[in-house]
Amino acid sequence: MRQEDPVATTTETDAMRRAVALSARALGATAPNPVVGAVILDAAGAVAGEGWHQRAGCPHAEVHALRAAGDRARGGTAVVTLEPCNHTGRTGPCAQALIEAGVARVVFAVADPSPHASGGGATLRAAGIDVESGLLADEAEAVNIAWLTSVRRNRPFVRWKYAATLDGRIAAADGTSRWISSAESRADVHRLRAEADAVVVGSGTLVADDPHLAVRGIEGAVQPLRVVVDTRARITPAAPVLDEAAPTLVAVGKDADTAHLPGVDVVRLPYAGPAGSAGLDIDALLAELHARGVRSVLLEGGPTLAGAFVAAGAVDSVVAYLAPALLGAGPHALADAGITTIAQALRLDVTEVERFGPDLRVTAVPTAPQES
Amino acid sequence: MRQEDPVATTTETDAMRRAVALSARALGATAPNPVVGAVILDAAGAVAGEGWHQRAGCPHAEVHALRAAGDRARGGTAVVTLEPCNHTGRTGPCAQALIEAGVARVVFAVADPSPHASGGGATLRAAGIDVESGLLADEAEAVNIAWLTSVRRNRPFVRWKYAATLDGRIAAADGTSRWISSAESRADVHRLRAEADAVVVGSGTLVADDPHLAVRGIEGAVQPLRVVVDTRARITPAAPVLDEAAPTLVAVGKDADTAHLPGVDVVRLPYAGPAGSAGLDIDALLAELHARGVRSVLLEGGPTLAGAFVAAGAVDSVVAYLAPALLGAGPHALADAGITTIAQALRLDVTEVERFGPDLRVTAVPTAPQES
Repeated sequence: MRQEDPVATTTETDAMRRAVALSARALGATAPNPVVGAVILDAAGAVAGEGWHQRAGCPHAEVHALRAAGDRARGGTAVVTLEPCNHTGRTGPCAQALIEAGVARVVFAVADPSPHASGGGATLRAAGIDVESGLLADEAEAVNIAWLTSVRRNRPFVRWKYAATLDGRIAAADGTSRWISSAESRADVHRLRAEADAVVVGSGTLVADDPHLAVRGIEGAVQPLRVVVDTRARITPAAPVLDEAAPTLVAVGKDADTAHLPGVDVVRLPYAGPAGSAGLDIDALLAELHARGVRSVLLEGGPTLAGAFVAAGAVDSVVAYLAPALLGAGPHALADAGITTIAQALRLDVTEVERFGPDLRVTAVPTAPQES
Repeated sequence: MRQEDPVATTTETDAMRRAVALSARALGATAPNPVVGAVILDAAGAVAGEGWHQRAGCPHAEVHALRAAGDRARGGTAVVTLEPCNHTGRTGPCAQALIEAGVARVVFAVADPSPHASGGGATLRAAGIDVESGLLADEAEAVNIAWLTSVRRNRPFVRWKYAATLDGRIAAADGTSRWISSAESRADVHRLRAEADAVVVGSGTLVADDPHLAVRGIEGAVQPLRVVVDTRARITPAAPVLDEAAPTLVAVGKDADTAHLPGVDVVRLPYAGPAGSAGLDIDALLAELHARGVRSVLLEGGPTLAGAFVAAGAVDSVVAYLAPALLGAGPHALADAGITTIAQALRLDVTEVERFGPDLRVTAVPTAPQES
């Protein structure tokens, strides 16, 4: 925890900015819970304690921060990125802890949309605490977007990541693709994996690339669940994705033959259309992942699976690594999304453009909320 | 011409920046000549005159600037974006004009690479004038890149422009494409056309879009030559591209039937491969355009023609308007470039990324000089 000068005072906005930064440290580690950061200011406005929610089952951010503040919380202000919870889960309700610590004021950024946890603000007000909400709400929402989306849509948040040439190819005509994107882009993908609860690929990518999908190079990262969408159970037991580096789930068609996969975590799902010609039902896949506590999914492709997600209205964010290269032939980033005419195009808003080595990383979100 | 405060002095760097800006005013209007800007500083360092080359056959930049400066040029400095010419074309040599005007010093940015015009610097030095070169050479070269490239490669500079979705599609599966790109991007394309000496499309684009290709919305623009690469002479006399808005050249295969095109400017070119299966020879097309005085080409597609240019090593710059939309089906920006494996990919360096409305405009150049 950062050492603070005990006599310096801090504005609530600065404290919230710090709380948002603290919350982001646990991205990918808290499912099925949100990421939350908290800063306690004492009665004189100096930072008395700070904390963040580190993992489900561990204390909430407010509890960490109150412990660090000790008696200095009395008469002070709690600055929290998410409305303090009102329910007793594996840890006690935070609203109650704040009341008992004697804080005079609570400032939170984003209201809790989950039905079983909300109402913390009202409980605090009823206890005579001054409560304000909305401070740096956009910043706090951006960091927590995966969890908030999962609550609002009742399915995991889906970020689709792909790496392609400037002309939209993910491999050359002969299937070679190492390396379309730069080392910097590939390192960034490991960060995206670390921030996700599950990483999903289709069997086409499995056959073409035989990927491992675990997070490498990020200290302390919680390995995401590796999910292979493998309708006809073509995976072999020796596939790298089935090693011990991280848990793996293989999603197969409801009547697929999985006799060659003893000991593998397999889930059987309905088809999106006639068996034999269609892939798996994306809504059913997401429901299964949601039931397993997955709140954020990094969809890594390939084009057919990405197309199925787009067709299901289940892409919430797009991260495109565009390598400045031209191929003119080879498979594309996206296929079979059910779009036949320009008016049906999935329109996006670009939210960020950054350079990663020679590549561009373009982040975009659908212009209108997607129905799932 | 801008009014200058007669007593203010100006640095040579500022004067060169101004000269570069002046030169850019004539982009697209000077072929087969370069764009050139000039500023004359008097003996006290104040701006005495400025000018730019406006059109082939009109006075060179130095002559305009010397006329504006009058007697104040004597003992002063001429700041010019390109090495003053040494030959007598339709106008007299600029080196001689500078000597006669009595300037004491000449600063130019970029040496003239053309064999019949270079040597101006040596002539000036022999006349006792202090000559310096290289000031703001990168900026001056960037503005004049089309002409400089045409001299170095003995063919026109080729800028390939395309508009595609983030997944690299230029139209939906049913061929609809209005409007993939934004109004801002489309306006910028008219600027690119105005700066080019010729705009080139293939017959596929002709059939799909029936384009007009003239510059609209840019005051004073010189209309580029419209070039249709139409191997089998499929164009009809009523095509909009054959109207009076701008000159048009139709390039056809050497044995194509053009009886239906009386009065149309047609050039017959060899095929790139066996007749009937191949398009036109790109080197022959560029040689023909070069012979007609074209120094810069804006290649507007479609994918097959762009692929032929890439395969011929004849793309010097890429301008991609990427619309934040996904299609998952439909034709791609680039096809049939002769690239079959990732090691053969045409690698680029991104030189600029800008927003045009919701779109991104990505400008890139091949990492190594292309052989033509």
